[in-house]
Amino acid sequence: MGRSRVDAAVEELLSRVVSGTYPAGTALPGEAALASDLSVSRLTAREATRVLVTRGVLSSRQGSGTYVNEPEAWQDLGSLVALARHDGSEREVGLALLEVRRMLEVGSAGLAAARITDDRLQAMESAIAELRRADADDDVDAAAAADLDFHNHIIKAASNPFVSVTFAPLRDELVVARRITSSCHKVRAHAVTQHEHILTALRLGSPDAAQAAMRAHMDQTTNDLLEYIT
Amino acid sequence: MGRSRVDAAVEELLSRVVSGTYPAGTALPGEAALASDLSVSRLTAREATRVLVTRGVLSSRQGSGTYVNEPEAWQDLGSLVALARHDGSEREVGLALLEVRRMLEVGSAGLAAARITDDRLQAMESAIAELRRADADDDVDAAAAADLDFHNHIIKAASNPFVSVTFAPLRDELVVARRITSSCHKVRAHAVTQHEHILTALRLGSPDAAQAAMRAHMDQTTNDLLEYIT
Repeated sequence: MGRSRVDAAVEELLSRVVSGTYPAGTALPGEAALASDLSVSRLTAREATRVLVTRGVLSSRQGSGTYVNEPEAWQDLGSLVALARHDGSEREVGLALLEVRRMLEVGSAGLAAARITDDRLQAMESAIAELRRADADDDVDAAAAADLDFHNHIIKAASNPFVSVTFAPLRDELVVARRITSSCHKVRAHAVTQHEHILTALRLGSPDAAQAAMRAHMDQTTNDLLEYIT
Repeated sequence: MGRSRVDAAVEELLSRVVSGTYPAGTALPGEAALASDLSVSRLTAREATRVLVTRGVLSSRQGSGTYVNEPEAWQDLGSLVALARHDGSEREVGLALLEVRRMLEVGSAGLAAARITDDRLQAMESAIAELRRADADDDVDAAAAADLDFHNHIIKAASNPFVSVTFAPLRDELVVARRITSSCHKVRAHAVTQHEHILTALRLGSPDAAQAAMRAHMDQTTNDLLEYIT
């Protein structure tokens, strides 16, 4: 069975949970009815259900079917973001994601200052050059990619596998917001300047300066979000 | 099929990956051979494999079997911790986990200072009282539980569902280390004092004071770890 068919069924099933078609606390329809609701095979419906069970969105109860869990029990950031997007605004979701991002990125910048290698500093300089070029060419996709690339280097430079894996689900969600704000030249220009400040602090090897520079960048990103996303 | 049988098979299969019996980059044995290796049914072996595929530890390739991914691709904190415990010392693992914990707990204390309710402040006071009682009675289990309870309140008081879900995998891992350090009276006494400082800052509604108090507590916890875990 194609992975993408299951993925599409997971997305559709999740969107039915999020929109209240299958509300928290209730049982899902039986496998045949669910497959028919989702217009997929029973096997695909079963696989999609299993995926959402592992994410904590659904629970299988022996002999009694599959139930929708309360959101407090969900173990998957992406599912909670989908729910928040349905219930609130893109702006609220973006601000809440930024609160977590700030914790992990400011902390990582501090660790990175003491642990970063020359090769990585060079790669970050290239990411800034690429952001500058993409800005000049008004190439939004390339600008968003260069921006994320810069930030990924900092997470990696923290040299702690637990930081990377904790940050990973957030990264996927950040791509969406970054593509929106990256379409504005002013935001890209801010990012170039602030990435340069962060890089300077990392070169100095100063955890305090790196954290302060990242904090300033997160403040600016919060302001961008308030200004450009509704 | 009992959930616990699959869980046990997942743990056994993961430990074989972690110990190098099934090294990264190689294919797992076929389903029948794997079931026999793990002394479980084929159905249980298949379920266990599926769980580790969703965690990014394994990959299924259409028509070609199941492969062990490089740890960089693993998406699950618990699996990475198991690997780190195999390759390193409990102390190294604990210090690396504390680096992530510090980011999320210091940040959450800051958010909590502005958002916490009177009910929750009261519940945190009870958690401190319980820790004090457990310390006096030398009740290690109760001390560890009261300690975690206090910290869970802060994560919840940050009032951001994305913070909670990001922190959740860490909490499971912290239980182990906390039970070791909680067996020492001096560590418990430190925790009582520092929890009181954090609570005072939260009562004042000062994000800076709450972050500073949590930072001091994380410093102390790091020292405890260096002193009591090898």
